[in-house]
Amino acid sequence: MNRPASPNAIWQATSVTRADRERLNGHPGLILWFTGLSGSGKSTMIHAVEKRLHGAGHHTQSLDGDNVRHGLCGDLGFSNADRVENIRRIGEVAKLMVDAGLIVLCGFISPFRADRARVRALVGAGDFVEILCHCPLEVCEQRDVKGLYRKARAGEIPEFTGISSPYEPPEAAELVLDTGSDSIAACADKVLELLPFWPARPR
Amino acid sequence: MNRPASPNAIWQATSVTRADRERLNGHPGLILWFTGLSGSGKSTMIHAVEKRLHGAGHHTQSLDGDNVRHGLCGDLGFSNADRVENIRRIGEVAKLMVDAGLIVLCGFISPFRADRARVRALVGAGDFVEILCHCPLEVCEQRDVKGLYRKARAGEIPEFTGISSPYEPPEAAELVLDTGSDSIAACADKVLELLPFWPARPR
Repeated sequence: MNRPASPNAIWQATSVTRADRERLNGHPGLILWFTGLSGSGKSTMIHAVEKRLHGAGHHTQSLDGDNVRHGLCGDLGFSNADRVENIRRIGEVAKLMVDAGLIVLCGFISPFRADRARVRALVGAGDFVEILCHCPLEVCEQRDVKGLYRKARAGEIPEFTGISSPYEPPEAAELVLDTGSDSIAACADKVLELLPFWPARPR
Repeated sequence: MNRPASPNAIWQATSVTRADRERLNGHPGLILWFTGLSGSGKSTMIHAVEKRLHGAGHHTQSLDGDNVRHGLCGDLGFSNADRVENIRRIGEVAKLMVDAGLIVLCGFISPFRADRARVRALVGAGDFVEILCHCPLEVCEQRDVKGLYRKARAGEIPEFTGISSPYEPPEAAELVLDTGSDSIAACADKVLELLPFWPARPR
């Protein structure tokens, strides 16, 4: 027993582990990483898939621009360096959530292949499911839910992905969704079918 | 119905909310924030309390130097500015985890009152439970589990809290633990008694 002689050595305790938390939750922790152009349907997919997972009693959290860009990454802009740091931090947070046993649904344009590869390497390949929301630029631009394409075309937004900044599609994504033509439900089905623990057993 | 005419407007879906996740978990999300000198027993307390919570079927995650300093905050040092940014990011991550319905146990020296107040303000007062691990400097230094005090005294670590950098104790912590004299179990009891949902109902 390699234990210090001090009576204060009593101040030790073992941790709850990721495996413990996964056992409690009844499913593994995992990252579902949705990448694609602005307007390609990432947030819609996340909400639809999370609803199904949650409805089956699975433990989830979603991360997207709405809850990250105003908080954790509120100090970052949209330069290439800031985009890299943005995705790095998100990867680290997602990793902590996977360790908490959560299914983490991440929706970020994440235009650079190297950044996505870095997140994959960070959490381990088995924990990272890369899903391309494939939707033609024309359709995204036509949707233009947030009016960003109009602004980008008017030159009001510099470095806008697809217009003035590149998007590098995955070369070997675990899944490619045709979010320009298929229905939400059909796309959500495809995502869920990827998961080894789906369909969920009744609780 | 204020719905855009485009057929692509079908790409909408509602989100799973914090309330939904808390209902699934059977308890609210919450931050237990342990502050105190290095060696004051923060990590030990976190492990002991998390073990009890997890054992009762509660959903938890712990954040401490070990899983944050090497990852999310790996780019930060120990200058005052970096300490502030360190605690800011941790607060944002803890907030996202509270939103996921988790009980988040944070153990950080977090020496500055203003930083802890900022986290409290960020998540809302009701979600932030500040717990001082009160342990005399002499006892912490005698424990010196990581050998840091010895190095700090030798001048090998600049800006070491309690030695060459200030520690500002809370003025109105929700709980003060005497981690220098009381047992781990007694301290853990005091933390759990703070929680409105404790003792846990059998599941």
